Amino acid sequence: MLGLMQDRPLSLPHVFRRVERQFGHKTVVSGRVGGETTMTWAQVCARVRRLAAALDELGVPAGARVGTFAWNSHRHVELYLAVPCTGRVLHTINHRLFGEQITYIVNDAADDVLFVDRSILPVIWPLAGTFTTVRAVVVMDDGSDAEIPDDDRVVDYEDLLGRAGDTGGEFTVDDENTAAALCYTSGTTGDPKGVLYSHRSVVLHAALLLMVDTFGINERDVVMPIVPMFHVNAWGLPYSAMLCGADLVLPGPAMSPPELAGMLARHKVTFGAAVATIWRGLLPLLGRHDFSAVRQIVSGGGAVDEALTRAYQEAIGVPLTNAWGMTETSPVVTTSRIATVHDGCTPEQQRALLATPGPAVPLTEVRIVGDDGREAPWDGQSPGELQVSGPTIAARYFGAHPGTGAFTGDGWLRTGDVATIDRHGYVRIVDRTKDLVKSGGEWISSVELENAIMEHAGVAEAAVIGVADDKWGERPVACVVPAAGATLTAEAVREHLRGRVASWWLPDQVFFLDEIPKTATGKFAKQRLRSQYTPTTR
Amino acid sequence: MLGLMQDRPLSLPHVFRRVERQFGHKTVVSGRVGGETTMTWAQVCARVRRLAAALDELGVPAGARVGTFAWNSHRHVELYLAVPCTGRVLHTINHRLFGEQITYIVNDAADDVLFVDRSILPVIWPLAGTFTTVRAVVVMDDGSDAEIPDDDRVVDYEDLLGRAGDTGGEFTVDDENTAAALCYTSGTTGDPKGVLYSHRSVVLHAALLLMVDTFGINERDVVMPIVPMFHVNAWGLPYSAMLCGADLVLPGPAMSPPELAGMLARHKVTFGAAVATIWRGLLPLLGRHDFSAVRQIVSGGGAVDEALTRAYQEAIGVPLTNAWGMTETSPVVTTSRIATVHDGCTPEQQRALLATPGPAVPLTEVRIVGDDGREAPWDGQSPGELQVSGPTIAARYFGAHPGTGAFTGDGWLRTGDVATIDRHGYVRIVDRTKDLVKSGGEWISSVELENAIMEHAGVAEAAVIGVADDKWGERPVACVVPAAGATLTAEAVREHLRGRVASWWLPDQVFFLDEIPKTATGKFAKQRLRSQYTPTTR
Repeated sequence: MLGLMQDRPLSLPHVFRRVERQFGHKTVVSGRVGGETTMTWAQVCARVRRLAAALDELGVPAGARVGTFAWNSHRHVELYLAVPCTGRVLHTINHRLFGEQITYIVNDAADDVLFVDRSILPVIWPLAGTFTTVRAVVVMDDGSDAEIPDDDRVVDYEDLLGRAGDTGGEFTVDDENTAAALCYTSGTTGDPKGVLYSHRSVVLHAALLLMVDTFGINERDVVMPIVPMFHVNAWGLPYSAMLCGADLVLPGPAMSPPELAGMLARHKVTFGAAVATIWRGLLPLLGRHDFSAVRQIVSGGGAVDEALTRAYQEAIGVPLTNAWGMTETSPVVTTSRIATVHDGCTPEQQRALLATPGPAVPLTEVRIVGDDGREAPWDGQSPGELQVSGPTIAARYFGAHPGTGAFTGDGWLRTGDVATIDRHGYVRIVDRTKDLVKSGGEWISSVELENAIMEHAGVAEAAVIGVADDKWGERPVACVVPAAGATLTAEAVREHLRGRVASWWLPDQVFFLDEIPKTATGKFAKQRLRSQYTPTTR
Repeated sequence: MLGLMQDRPLSLPHVFRRVERQFGHKTVVSGRVGGETTMTWAQVCARVRRLAAALDELGVPAGARVGTFAWNSHRHVELYLAVPCTGRVLHTINHRLFGEQITYIVNDAADDVLFVDRSILPVIWPLAGTFTTVRAVVVMDDGSDAEIPDDDRVVDYEDLLGRAGDTGGEFTVDDENTAAALCYTSGTTGDPKGVLYSHRSVVLHAALLLMVDTFGINERDVVMPIVPMFHVNAWGLPYSAMLCGADLVLPGPAMSPPELAGMLARHKVTFGAAVATIWRGLLPLLGRHDFSAVRQIVSGGGAVDEALTRAYQEAIGVPLTNAWGMTETSPVVTTSRIATVHDGCTPEQQRALLATPGPAVPLTEVRIVGDDGREAPWDGQSPGELQVSGPTIAARYFGAHPGTGAFTGDGWLRTGDVATIDRHGYVRIVDRTKDLVKSGGEWISSVELENAIMEHAGVAEAAVIGVADDKWGERPVACVVPAAGATLTAEAVREHLRGRVASWWLPDQVFFLDEIPKTATGKFAKQRLRSQYTPTTR
């Protein structure tokens, strides 16, 4: 027997109607080169309607991917709404990836048109010839003086909106499982893999962030997603802000610590989200501004050390808290918080708890699975691979390579992290099953980096490990065995890698060994390497 | 193109797993006759597993309705979980309805078994012969000494659980549109109508209440639903408490003002929900207890007067706030709150605002439609019929009479209330299109009451109107034209009605007129009657 409730889809047109009708008076502040722009949501929504008409004018078909290379700005927000609300797919791309990865991603997604911030154009335009499906490149002027190519494919965003009529009617997306957004992860070895979010998953995720025990985003908040809008929808924060009518503050290209600190203070930001590297960079500036409006700041994309959490507590009276997720998980799966059972803990214990991922949010489930394939108990001691299930979690990857190895037989996502879970559901990451280095919140594949090093004729063998780094969280270190008779220097290895991998993949240190220690099964014994080659041995 | 997210249903088995695994240490307090019982959620969940096995043992088929006549208690919570988590339908019934209505509802729902609190048994057992589908009556001992009939159909709840094995496996409901719960509304004329909630609507509604701008229910809360669990799932509060791990305090049959005030204070309740009549009854007791733990108290089921809101503000430092909904709407559609735009208002203006329904919650949409069938503007002035849409709103009624007149061509629910909406989405109820009296949060049909009066041989014509009442919000008043030559008294009219309508439908006052004033189209001119027959004319 089926219930008799209205068959109303969980879809972004509802989110658009809500922010347009109910919260038109709230504001969106966007940084640009040398300044900032303030708009009301009413103004943004009117532009969304023009952008929707412009996408029709550009002839972008239903279901087609619209690629964006853009900072956090009102124009990116406009794309966040107009593209999925008209049945197209918003495809946000990280312009900091290595050129070959960008080409791969644009072509794998078969992007129909691209929207590119002017300041990012110098990185993207040189790749334009490698894009096989892109029909037009729409340039969004963010105040940069970067040269705009004289090319028929190039269109100015404001010209496009100026020419477009107003889409007066209601947006509709009838099936909530329609694709809304696409984001590629570089989190696993091999080619980047696309995660194709549905309207249902995006709206449910936005709703989760409004709950008190998740982030508690509400109408009184001024939300600043420092985490980029090309990275898992900026944790879904723009959509959450629309759903509850919070003000948004978007840094644009103004990503230096002084610029970020200035925006945080000037706009009385109440909720901020960024990777730990950003928060670490802001630490020296906290004494120079008034951050009294801040109620919560969250660090994602990796562990937070208790010292950093304490430093924020002491500087602005609010501890840095942690959250855990992946591109495959929309992303928020867990958020750290002090529950009633922790009321008796010391302040130190509470801060240590806030530095860990915390319990799963509603609608999402976590489990840990041991090497024997059986679920490990929630005793805070037994480790297992962290696996995740729920309506905001990927079932497979987009495109030709669904990545079946990343999912279990019963459809749970294998995260590649090893964790414990305590009896109150609190997750702690204790190790990683995949061989990756996480630097500044972005993944570096050890295996790919090793392969690139071993392409050097003078290298017999190479192993890459991640070592703790104050600024970036982790940085790659290479352990290299030279080929017989070869003479190698660290700089020669790095020089060899330039052009082969992204510049931020270059290992900070290169150690030369006679041989790489191996495990019984012949694999690199990376635990032994890690314990030997720590930063203090530099 | 469809998104590639996991196809995980929004269903109550998730809610059960969450409260069982993550919040087993939190508590459920239940009042009973002459005392109270405290259980952990772990204990309650273990009993849910036994109850699930017991339902199998009773042979209750999938999809069958399980009727409950019960106060708010841990046993009712157990039914809230075990029945829908095993694919049956929880059918909560108001034992205060008139006997014929109860018989109609039980038979219309075709309830397979009934679960009845012992203290309610004396009201229900005399009707047992009229129930055409009920195979068993399970009695839940709430401390009452009411006689238990010696009848094969009668089973003791604790005996049943004691005999049942433990359902060790996982509950699963694969299709989120599966029916989970059924509740009849007496809110319209004619026979009561059933609203059949789906797992999807119940879970989404539970999630909505966790949002800051709705009720903000969270793990630190001690939630006391004084609103009965037979009334629209007690506003969904038990399910919200399970989803976030809040403690629950359930009054059971201990519904007198001194008992309720004692529980509120003793258990440090942080969030309470009840109709205005209850809050008004508690007012004289507020000085005798410590209510400092209370963070929010909500009144639903009708307007709140600003005086009552202010009285709470002055007595306990927290104003009474309002929420609006119907059985057909799960029920919460709007919740009152002070938004950033109201920060400049005076305290009086803010309290007046808190006494109105407020803006719609996320995922749910409201509109007002004028007599001309066109949507009225959100200007705070133009009235129109309030209509509601969303995944937690009914699409039609259960059973043979889907009540198509209650829904628009485009599938919105017609609420029967006339409202204005201001530019920030704030709803105010200004009138009612349906002819109803709302007494103590429950509807009385004027038309049915009029018909019952007119069955008296000495009555020529009768009109019933609602007049404001300090305690009940509204009470029915009858205006009666005696038949030629007949001699009538108010007591004779009331005596005639006894046995024909529920005792709380009996009009407090009966006025005798020479004729009922009529409108141009021959209908009773009830506005004129209301302006004449106010309580001061008593």
